[in-house]
Amino acid sequence: MTDTATPPRETAHPIDRHILERWSPRAFDASPIDEATLLTLFEAARWAPSAYNHQPWRFAYALRGDAHWDAFVSALLPFNAAWAQAASTLVFVLSDQFITLPGKDVPSPATTASFDTGAAWGLLALQAAKLGLHSHAMAGFDHTRAAEVTGADARYRIEAAVAIGRIGDAAQLPDTLRAREFPSPRRALAETAFHGRLG
Amino acid sequence: MTDTATPPRETAHPIDRHILERWSPRAFDASPIDEATLLTLFEAARWAPSAYNHQPWRFAYALRGDAHWDAFVSALLPFNAAWAQAASTLVFVLSDQFITLPGKDVPSPATTASFDTGAAWGLLALQAAKLGLHSHAMAGFDHTRAAEVTGADARYRIEAAVAIGRIGDAAQLPDTLRAREFPSPRRALAETAFHGRLG
Repeated sequence: MTDTATPPRETAHPIDRHILERWSPRAFDASPIDEATLLTLFEAARWAPSAYNHQPWRFAYALRGDAHWDAFVSALLPFNAAWAQAASTLVFVLSDQFITLPGKDVPSPATTASFDTGAAWGLLALQAAKLGLHSHAMAGFDHTRAAEVTGADARYRIEAAVAIGRIGDAAQLPDTLRAREFPSPRRALAETAFHGRLG
Repeated sequence: MTDTATPPRETAHPIDRHILERWSPRAFDASPIDEATLLTLFEAARWAPSAYNHQPWRFAYALRGDAHWDAFVSALLPFNAAWAQAASTLVFVLSDQFITLPGKDVPSPATTASFDTGAAWGLLALQAAKLGLHSHAMAGFDHTRAAEVTGADARYRIEAAVAIGRIGDAAQLPDTLRAREFPSPRRALAETAFHGRLG
């Protein structure tokens, strides 16, 4: 386990410990995950708030070794596929970019779809942490290929690929990845939240 | 309290109860909030994951009755200002739409800024629920005015305005709002998460 050797994250204000302890490793143990556990994560995600309760989020998943797995791995960029293929599941997070507003007959652009879908992803990642799982979102995937393997048409934006599973042995990672296999720090709170105007 | 009269939300898969119970009321009680409590919410938000650990999220806030309050209220659309002015704090959630990637000298568009900032907002909303607070995000605000009152330049996208406070008496709401003052339902899990291809 890598994270026992890293300094604890600290916070001046007490928050849910899983929010504080959650991080995104690259070493996974290649174990399977049962589908009910995975559905628990999507269950958490779907209770996120969204404008007009549009619920723009969609999740397409492959379970390790199933009929979809190789296709999902193939949609990752090689440097991500190299480590993410040891995850238990791969998920593409998509957002419905169109909404039919109340009183309208035709869809219009859903301007908050990516933001709202991000909220769902945040809750998914937190619920994973609460179940002892780790998740790691990736921007590094082939969007065309990801659309092919998920069957997403132009209505959807593919926001992220996510590897989810149990943490593995960082010693198995290539040197370049092992060197950054620890929880990342954050910008100071005072540079993040501003009373009144941005500093 | 309105929510005691509404049917409980149900889930087939057990999730953090605050994720399930969190909802977005419009009736707030006009009580003050202490700044340390509010900072706890931003503390939760800042531990969200983001591509390249960019942390694109920024939060600008006004506390009820302070020097910024009236300006923040004025940036809401009137139908939102009418109820949101009874909140304890108003927050604009912004995202930094540019990132200087590793090895680069100039910023490029941060394609996941809205999505990542949504994750931070999701954790903020959840932490609020854990402290017994309610939050309600709004897309209905004047973007130009919001940029003025927060001092945000074109580098930032203003993703949402959020009212945060303690739940109030729904009987005080106008009829049209009182009629929908209850936790909203969600689309079925089977229409949200897909094994393999989108249904």
